[in-house]
Amino acid sequence: MNKIVILIHCRDQKGIIAAVTNYIASIEGNIIYLDQHVDGDQDVFFMRLVCEFAKDHFNLNDIKDNFQKNLATPFSMSWSVQLQERKPRMAIFVSKYDHCLYDILSRFSTGELHVEIPLIISNHNDLSNVAKRFSIPYHYIPFTKENKEAGEKAQIEILKEHQIDFIVLARYMQIITPNLIELYKNKIINIHHSFLPAFPGAKPYHSAFNRGVKIIGATSHYVTEELDEGPIIEQDITRVTHSHSIEDFIMKGKDLERMVLARAIKLHAERKTMVYNNKTVVFA
Amino acid sequence: MNKIVILIHCRDQKGIIAAVTNYIASIEGNIIYLDQHVDGDQDVFFMRLVCEFAKDHFNLNDIKDNFQKNLATPFSMSWSVQLQERKPRMAIFVSKYDHCLYDILSRFSTGELHVEIPLIISNHNDLSNVAKRFSIPYHYIPFTKENKEAGEKAQIEILKEHQIDFIVLARYMQIITPNLIELYKNKIINIHHSFLPAFPGAKPYHSAFNRGVKIIGATSHYVTEELDEGPIIEQDITRVTHSHSIEDFIMKGKDLERMVLARAIKLHAERKTMVYNNKTVVFA
Amino acid sequence: MNKIVILIHCRDQKGIIAAVTNYIASIEGNIIYLDQHVDGDQDVFFMRLVCEFAKDHFNLNDIKDNFQKNLATPFSMSWSVQLQERKPRMAIFVSKYDHCLYDILSRFSTGELHVEIPLIISNHNDLSNVAKRFSIPYHYIPFTKENKEAGEKAQIEILKEHQIDFIVLARYMQIITPNLIELYKNKIINIHHSFLPAFPGAKPYHSAFNRGVKIIGATSHYVTEELDEGPIIEQDITRVTHSHSIEDFIMKGKDLERMVLARAIKLHAERKTMVYNNKTVVFA
Amino acid sequence: MNKIVILIHCRDQKGIIAAVTNYIASIEGNIIYLDQHVDGDQDVFFMRLVCEFAKDHFNLNDIKDNFQKNLATPFSMSWSVQLQERKPRMAIFVSKYDHCLYDILSRFSTGELHVEIPLIISNHNDLSNVAKRFSIPYHYIPFTKENKEAGEKAQIEILKEHQIDFIVLARYMQIITPNLIELYKNKIINIHHSFLPAFPGAKPYHSAFNRGVKIIGATSHYVTEELDEGPIIEQDITRVTHSHSIEDFIMKGKDLERMVLARAIKLHAERKTMVYNNKTVVFA
Repeated sequence: MNKIVILIHCRDQKGIIAAVTNYIASIEGNIIYLDQHVDGDQDVFFMRLVCEFAKDHFNLNDIKDNFQKNLATPFSMSWSVQLQERKPRMAIFVSKYDHCLYDILSRFSTGELHVEIPLIISNHNDLSNVAKRFSIPYHYIPFTKENKEAGEKAQIEILKEHQIDFIVLARYMQIITPNLIELYKNKIINIHHSFLPAFPGAKPYHSAFNRGVKIIGATSHYVTEELDEGPIIEQDITRVTHSHSIEDFIMKGKDLERMVLARAIKLHAERKTMVYNNKTVVFA
Repeated sequence: MNKIVILIHCRDQKGIIAAVTNYIASIEGNIIYLDQHVDGDQDVFFMRLVCEFAKDHFNLNDIKDNFQKNLATPFSMSWSVQLQERKPRMAIFVSKYDHCLYDILSRFSTGELHVEIPLIISNHNDLSNVAKRFSIPYHYIPFTKENKEAGEKAQIEILKEHQIDFIVLARYMQIITPNLIELYKNKIINIHHSFLPAFPGAKPYHSAFNRGVKIIGATSHYVTEELDEGPIIEQDITRVTHSHSIEDFIMKGKDLERMVLARAIKLHAERKTMVYNNKTVVFA
Repeated sequence: MNKIVILIHCRDQKGIIAAVTNYIASIEGNIIYLDQHVDGDQDVFFMRLVCEFAKDHFNLNDIKDNFQKNLATPFSMSWSVQLQERKPRMAIFVSKYDHCLYDILSRFSTGELHVEIPLIISNHNDLSNVAKRFSIPYHYIPFTKENKEAGEKAQIEILKEHQIDFIVLARYMQIITPNLIELYKNKIINIHHSFLPAFPGAKPYHSAFNRGVKIIGATSHYVTEELDEGPIIEQDITRVTHSHSIEDFIMKGKDLERMVLARAIKLHAERKTMVYNNKTVVFA
Repeated sequence: MNKIVILIHCRDQKGIIAAVTNYIASIEGNIIYLDQHVDGDQDVFFMRLVCEFAKDHFNLNDIKDNFQKNLATPFSMSWSVQLQERKPRMAIFVSKYDHCLYDILSRFSTGELHVEIPLIISNHNDLSNVAKRFSIPYHYIPFTKENKEAGEKAQIEILKEHQIDFIVLARYMQIITPNLIELYKNKIINIHHSFLPAFPGAKPYHSAFNRGVKIIGATSHYVTEELDEGPIIEQDITRVTHSHSIEDFIMKGKDLERMVLARAIKLHAERKTMVYNNKTVVFA
């Protein structure tokens, strides 16, 4: 069977679900997943469907054309239709921290992540050995404050050349420039090592320690021009006590960062996230 | 606006969602919530909808009749259609433990529970003062092993007289008889003070302590004839360490019991649960 | 047996534990709990002990005198020695929200809280019926911005008259004045309905909703002059999704507030907290 | 500074803490961590200390001799004194599942685990490539039911040759024989993919799915002769819903298994666990 994933959002209107499900039924599709959400404040409708079709009745381009004509145009929908089996192509950006990189590559190796990883990009050479262990090409693109623009240009060339669909910042310690953010809008996933919006910016574990919190967290979000203010995909927390030092916070935080980032990657790769109004809709 | 809650389950078939949503659209309803689930193993389809209708176009009996004729019969559905604003009538059964009773009545008093509580039934008189504090009628129906049947008969009479929709066993220490279970099938909610299926039966905190577990739990489930084996509605856990005594387990467990039972009551009262094959579907 | 709880903090020095435990051994005490913490950054030592003594060898005043002479003076300790069985006297301040008040009074009624509750104070009369249900005296002390000082004076009089040891702000919607804070330093417990330091101040659930967080929290802390910046005693969180409205946040938050505040009250009442440098040491 | 970790258990007696801390003070040691636990039911005392000593005054053998003479003998203690900096030598046993192995080796590579890993042993050759990626020697020791004894003999020889201190079963699918268990008593750590004591034995995720639980778990424990009944070191859980398939349970469970096993390894490697009466004392 062929399976497709449909994501839709548009102004909330009567009869959308009926129209979409009628259309699926009319082309002999079987709905195996449907979830929808209405944002009452914003008056916006969101829906995710997974449908399966018999191999011999299936033409993806026809479906897309008809979807546009019969549904997207009349309802003014933003939409996408994708083959479930197609793996999105993911680039990983790193600097010197290795724990998230190890975790992502380990999960990739065990077959947990529905992605291809054509490359890793870094402004340092420190983690090239990690890439080598997992046989992933490592592109070392160093740059300084002065030639950051040239560095970004080199990054973008490689990303285009390898037809990268989305980017994961696995504790990448550089600010992404507006140019790259615009090119990969809602397609760059960052992991921040605090429970946002608490402790944005640098050294959040130190700030958390000094404030005397009893819980620390990590947050994965899409990157926007406002640092640490993009749409949140996933968060998680762990308990700390007075007996934990800053080093303990950092160590316990590593587990959070790994886990939260991995979950965000999975959600994005399986087309379960939608972005609207600087917030995410995350279908289970 | 009038809001109705529709629950459906039937054999999985193509076109069900389209048929149901078409019907809602045809009678000028607006779907404000739809979630569905397909159990692939059992080949069963489940759906929950909330729809709103303008006051002047609304006739619940007509909707029910047409639903039966146009949808339930052709698709062989089990279904219910209920007015959201109607509060189900809940009876509470207690023995001597007071923490769950206090919690339920406190939540009821603050307006958190979408129920009416016409009465409390107990085989002991100990908690009549709690009922009095919250001005809920308390029916003391004592019985012994010898006259348990008479006791149950008295219980059922009161339940019928007050048109009780569902029953909550708030640490009620008696086994419910098959007769009452049959009358209130999937409508009796129990709280068991362990993480089922671990530690069923009596004294689960003692068993957990002796086993040296690092986490204890509580489980709310519908009552069936097999003790502690009914469909699970909700569970939660808390951490314990070697430093906790059995008394600490019991104290920490009380918080779990309160919370888990309250959540289960809410889910049931808001018509978010369906039972099939000794398992629950719990819509968020 | 008589049990006493000893709390100590002082500059970290060699031999403190030996000196204290030797002293306990010398007066025939048996240590049934000892936990200590060294803050390496601040070079401060903290310790909590629980010791038991045979009834006939026990004189609390002698113990205190000798403790001061033999231990506290040479080591320059801040310390307290208290009879475990003595229940601290707690005042509850409320405004109009009833969920935390119901929860505290329910737990008090079930015997879970090791406190006495001589009185409730409020600037509104709304919750007097709740107090009445639980037979706790309710002092209605209304004030406006203009005569807040007089209101506070009346509060303090009552607190003194009833020998109140500590105060719980159970969603009390007024700012506590420096005068009262100074009188009850590290003895006023507040519950804030966010995961501090995220979302301090008013309407944190609205802010959390607008930010699109995936987790909301509640924080219990000692009140200091800086609003929502006092030493944190306890925090907890719960998951939310895009499908939850602000009303859902508030409802789910109520459970957090109840639970977190109750835990903080227990920790304080059982003398398990110490404050230093705007942080707490919380012994398990 | 030299740091040592002291673990003690013995019958509860007055004056133990004073005696031990006096001894530490007498040899110019500084206590930087002390935690103790009294099991009131069993009348047993447990203590863990970390002490530091100036380099030039330090002789580990002298300390051990004096500890035995002055403390262990008079109080009939079971005890150990170990240099904190010495890394215990850990062997990993695997079969075909790779997720825990990848996780352990990744954590080892990032420097998170205070161990040496001289070798991996397996009854299959499947994971030799994983070992190769991380440059850890892989010993393929195949055996059948018929020659299991010979296989175990070969395992033990290698373990002894490499002076292995403890063994981690990273989803090793063979039953450990009493002979090996006896050799490494309380030194073999297993990960079981359920919330024990629920669902011991084979296929726990299938059993959990069929029971309709709302929470699944994983448990790390020391191996004893009774399958899945050894002393529990650590447990954790995650939520599941009706919408999760068995495959989802397995996938979500992998994260639990990784995390729980890693925590247990850390606790053991840092000498924070003690075993008594088929339960663990786990110092924070």
